Amino acid sequence: MTKAVVLLSGGLDSATVLAMARASGYLPYALIIDYGQRHRAELRAAERVADTLGVAERKVVRIDLAAIGGSALTDTGIPVPEQPSEGIPVTYVPARNTVFLAVALGWAEVLDARDIFIGVNAVDYSGYPDCRPDFVFAFERLANLATKVGVAGEGFHIHAPLVRLSKAEIIERGSALGVDYALTVSCYQADEEGRACRVCDACRLRAQGFAEAGWPDPTRYRGAVREPSPPDPT
Amino acid sequence: MTKAVVLLSGGLDSATVLAMARASGYLPYALIIDYGQRHRAELRAAERVADTLGVAERKVVRIDLAAIGGSALTDTGIPVPEQPSEGIPVTYVPARNTVFLAVALGWAEVLDARDIFIGVNAVDYSGYPDCRPDFVFAFERLANLATKVGVAGEGFHIHAPLVRLSKAEIIERGSALGVDYALTVSCYQADEEGRACRVCDACRLRAQGFAEAGWPDPTRYRGAVREPSPPDPT
Repeated sequence: MTKAVVLLSGGLDSATVLAMARASGYLPYALIIDYGQRHRAELRAAERVADTLGVAERKVVRIDLAAIGGSALTDTGIPVPEQPSEGIPVTYVPARNTVFLAVALGWAEVLDARDIFIGVNAVDYSGYPDCRPDFVFAFERLANLATKVGVAGEGFHIHAPLVRLSKAEIIERGSALGVDYALTVSCYQADEEGRACRVCDACRLRAQGFAEAGWPDPTRYRGAVREPSPPDPT
Repeated sequence: MTKAVVLLSGGLDSATVLAMARASGYLPYALIIDYGQRHRAELRAAERVADTLGVAERKVVRIDLAAIGGSALTDTGIPVPEQPSEGIPVTYVPARNTVFLAVALGWAEVLDARDIFIGVNAVDYSGYPDCRPDFVFAFERLANLATKVGVAGEGFHIHAPLVRLSKAEIIERGSALGVDYALTVSCYQADEEGRACRVCDACRLRAQGFAEAGWPDPTRYRGAVREPSPPDPT
């Protein structure tokens, strides 16, 4: 089997990617990044997903992105928005996917793997710049200049199989491959037990995906059902 | 003054880059990466260099590259070579400069800076792939796809002012700018006090640079002067 490093966040998208990599015959090495994210339940979800779907190895690497701050996901002083907003939201973590892919590239080189999977998505997503196909292509080009393997003329391939799928399509693909989405946590402010807030961007996109796919949503929400407040009329 | 993130390792090259960035009128923000390197004295040297040359801020970010291993610099089970070797040496840290630039990019975005300085060098160096001009250009291109700033059409610039200089030329430039190289530590197996081994690649390139520049070498070596053993005749 061909080894592949799979970036695994604990969310819905990367769980689907892991299932797709397995179904394509890759032997997955799950890379889980503890970057100081406020939603710690995501890390435990990633470990559960890896163990349930099956991987050759799972590795948690700590990277202190909270030290540079600048995001609601790493700086608890910045609240997670509970309303849709225009433009790139404050949950954007500067250069996060660049950092993640860089570490994945390093591990791939150590493992002598040539394939890296990442669950970025440019359709139903939050508008983060490092989720677009051009970003993925540019990273692949960089990878082949940055490494011993590249120098040797052998190529790395960055797989982003979700990049042009809607959230509903992602859920359909994953469900067909047997992914149990009850294991995953998408919420940016999930509590210790992984229960979701229902109102952040990640919760909204996830719920909309299940609704559009016509699948029952297995997400565990905390507290009473709370309707999002109406948007500010300004 | 224009803000710039300067990657600072504690070695000779990045100290020179910091001095060059200052001399060019940038306000430097020194980024020091604790990646689990075995030569911990390098980190203290980086802090000394930042404090002596003067920076707007210095930040140490921890990234656990030792978790992925694969290098003599992060895995103490792999000895640092004490003889010159062919090809890319075991001191190569997979994807290190990609990871470092990614974190620098994140911090630059948080600081609203557009300029990043890195002391890579493709002349008197150890043959690492991520020290070449093409790598730097590819990262710059990636940076402008990966970030909010890039989306807004404003460009990041990755400065690698040493990339085509010899070690002797680097020392001449830095000395002219008042860099005190006694503050710096290049050795891959420096002891706790920053004293160098004299025989690793980094020590050899450094000593050769001072000799060629005709400058007194301020490096503190440990123990008695030890001649490198003759190369294995096989």
